[in-house]
Amino acid sequence: MRIVEMHITPIALGDPPLLNAAGLHAPYALRTVVELVTACGITGLAEVPGSAAVDAVLEEAREVVLGADPRNWHALRAALEGHFKPESSAARGDAPWDQRKIVQVFSALDVACLDIAGKAYGVPVANLLGGIVRERVPYSAYLFFKYEGAGGSLAFDVDPGATGWDAARQRAALDPEGIVAQAKAMVAEFGFRSIKLKGGVFEPEQEVAALKALRSAFGPEVPIRYDPNALWSVETSVRWGRELESVLEYFEDPARGQPAMAEVRRAVNLPLATNMCTTSFADLPGSVKHGSEDIILTDHHYWGGLHASMELASFCRSFGLGVSMHSNNHAGISMAAMTHLGAAMPNLSYALDTHYPWQWEEIIKGGRMKIEDGCVTLPKGPGLGVELDRTALEHAHQNYLRCGLKERDDEPEMQKKVPGWKFKATRW
Amino acid sequence: MRIVEMHITPIALGDPPLLNAAGLHAPYALRTVVELVTACGITGLAEVPGSAAVDAVLEEAREVVLGADPRNWHALRAALEGHFKPESSAARGDAPWDQRKIVQVFSALDVACLDIAGKAYGVPVANLLGGIVRERVPYSAYLFFKYEGAGGSLAFDVDPGATGWDAARQRAALDPEGIVAQAKAMVAEFGFRSIKLKGGVFEPEQEVAALKALRSAFGPEVPIRYDPNALWSVETSVRWGRELESVLEYFEDPARGQPAMAEVRRAVNLPLATNMCTTSFADLPGSVKHGSEDIILTDHHYWGGLHASMELASFCRSFGLGVSMHSNNHAGISMAAMTHLGAAMPNLSYALDTHYPWQWEEIIKGGRMKIEDGCVTLPKGPGLGVELDRTALEHAHQNYLRCGLKERDDEPEMQKKVPGWKFKATRW
Repeated sequence: MRIVEMHITPIALGDPPLLNAAGLHAPYALRTVVELVTACGITGLAEVPGSAAVDAVLEEAREVVLGADPRNWHALRAALEGHFKPESSAARGDAPWDQRKIVQVFSALDVACLDIAGKAYGVPVANLLGGIVRERVPYSAYLFFKYEGAGGSLAFDVDPGATGWDAARQRAALDPEGIVAQAKAMVAEFGFRSIKLKGGVFEPEQEVAALKALRSAFGPEVPIRYDPNALWSVETSVRWGRELESVLEYFEDPARGQPAMAEVRRAVNLPLATNMCTTSFADLPGSVKHGSEDIILTDHHYWGGLHASMELASFCRSFGLGVSMHSNNHAGISMAAMTHLGAAMPNLSYALDTHYPWQWEEIIKGGRMKIEDGCVTLPKGPGLGVELDRTALEHAHQNYLRCGLKERDDEPEMQKKVPGWKFKATRW
Repeated sequence: MRIVEMHITPIALGDPPLLNAAGLHAPYALRTVVELVTACGITGLAEVPGSAAVDAVLEEAREVVLGADPRNWHALRAALEGHFKPESSAARGDAPWDQRKIVQVFSALDVACLDIAGKAYGVPVANLLGGIVRERVPYSAYLFFKYEGAGGSLAFDVDPGATGWDAARQRAALDPEGIVAQAKAMVAEFGFRSIKLKGGVFEPEQEVAALKALRSAFGPEVPIRYDPNALWSVETSVRWGRELESVLEYFEDPARGQPAMAEVRRAVNLPLATNMCTTSFADLPGSVKHGSEDIILTDHHYWGGLHASMELASFCRSFGLGVSMHSNNHAGISMAAMTHLGAAMPNLSYALDTHYPWQWEEIIKGGRMKIEDGCVTLPKGPGLGVELDRTALEHAHQNYLRCGLKERDDEPEMQKKVPGWKFKATRW
């Protein structure tokens, strides 16, 4: 079996004005869709965070990919490792999202190859990751402080005809009351059983108040996780972390880097999670040495694919760490890939993060994947179990061309609302 | 897809009188063949070290196995973990071979399930372990000090009509000259490019002399590994290890336990390998803490299967450790499984160990698998690519019933030659 075609399609999906440590989400979230086609006519799909830089590396990978057997991922990975200079962990950057490029290319190719193999063998991708341990994969509500607005072509406007979550999604949430209202609407719509709040936006006191308001509103049976994206000093993390000991399920990346995280971990009686200080296999020895976290949030886009995420899960099992999943904005191909991973991971200790409720557009046939009772049911079909809607893909690609964005950069977006606003690696 | 039948067949294969730290190989090596059959008529094969104790645990696993989907290994493993109490690392015991039972049961079931999945999908098992990175898998010559004799029904006698390796296999090798002659005959027959000497039999000085004789006979282009099976004290390991710094590729399990191995490792400029101090995922944190070895010798029979061995390889990659493979006596099903693993493991740093040249009987169709230029070529067929020869299996099962052995125990065998001989955990 040989790969004979590779298509790289950048797309833009409407995204509301969500606040985070790096600033403000632009009206469009970028993704890149990768299609691999075999000589025997099987197409494999994948989706990665979009940027012109990643698209360029994908383009450069083409000569290695064409002719490869999609069933031999390790051989293709080795060939890619021979072709590309490895990126250091430092290349990740300080932003909440990972800025390494090669791992995203590995991820796209691994997922698309698995989609092909699953289709060739007539089984779901989860079967090729060690087998299905659960058919219904639990996700967490993902709350954001946000400005009023729908995003996309509506930018900061709202759609006056919207109802239910569709209306709530467009409303501002800038204080505890707004966050609780957002949570209630999202939970009512999707049935989530756990909640995450993205922080690093306001003073710690204000964000802790929102967390306490969520706890009061939902009670102890709904676990809450919180992520200030490493914007806090060790002192701030310890001070407010102690306040949150009876509030949180886990505390994600309060401070920056493994040594700082380890210091917080020793001082605060809360499990710490990370997608910022331990983000690659090269970081694992440091994680063990420092004891920087209790939970690693895998994200197959940044760990180099689904196979790699399973390897990370095995490491976590051996070293007594929990495992959950990080998310950026994404469409249905990644939703399917994340769900296959969640279905196959024996030691998935926590519901997965997903930004999915914040989007309303889709590029797969059948439209938005369903989240019911907080879970996504493993797609039945072979491979990932999703197919491209060519019309929707073309629409999303036209949005990409029209919006003019070439990478994610939340700072200039924030400056449109708060002139002179600057990202700080440690703010409080 | 559902497993509807499980067959457990203990067998005995003739084995020459090989000396080792635990005494002397009996005239027969025991194995257990496991067959799983699906409702749709696909049979999956596996083979594990034989003992009545492991057979009993396999029998106990039957109720969990029947009805399981062989494509969902992680789900079956989780069910087995729920059924059986986990074994501690200490259950491994002091012998050169691992005495844990559950991991061997996991291994048998994982391999047989992969064989079924490969046959169902029409691809080699290596494709289901991440893909094929090499078609020809390198093995190492495996030398033993031994008494004269063929083993099996010939016991300590020799077959006067034998020629070539078949004759050399039966000759005594009790000194450096005998070991060099054995090595030359084995290398001439199979084309091995590296050599292992099993030690722990004679005084260190005598075994080191044999290693130096091998080095003189083969030159520096043939890497030599040596394994006294943890019978040496730290002091002895350091003293003789230093003598071997210019002789060995790696030094396997000189001393017993992670702390002792770490002490030797700091004092001797040689890579240390182990299949005795780091033998399970639960041992990995200790390995990192102590720094007990440079190379972990996976053995899918003892690490819980082929999936598990791939997980170990990933750990080794992250932590900068080499990976190679340990072997006991085995037949063609395990030879195929080991070869699929070797074909799929991206970071296989060393040629694999195998006892295979010491046997002459086989239970798979087509007879003995070929070792050419020191390599075994990945079987082409789907799954493991081997099939049972029912007549040969029945013959080997009758040998099992006739020989009366129920477990491996090299001490009483040794006492037949050296009255009063006793195993010692640290001998020198």
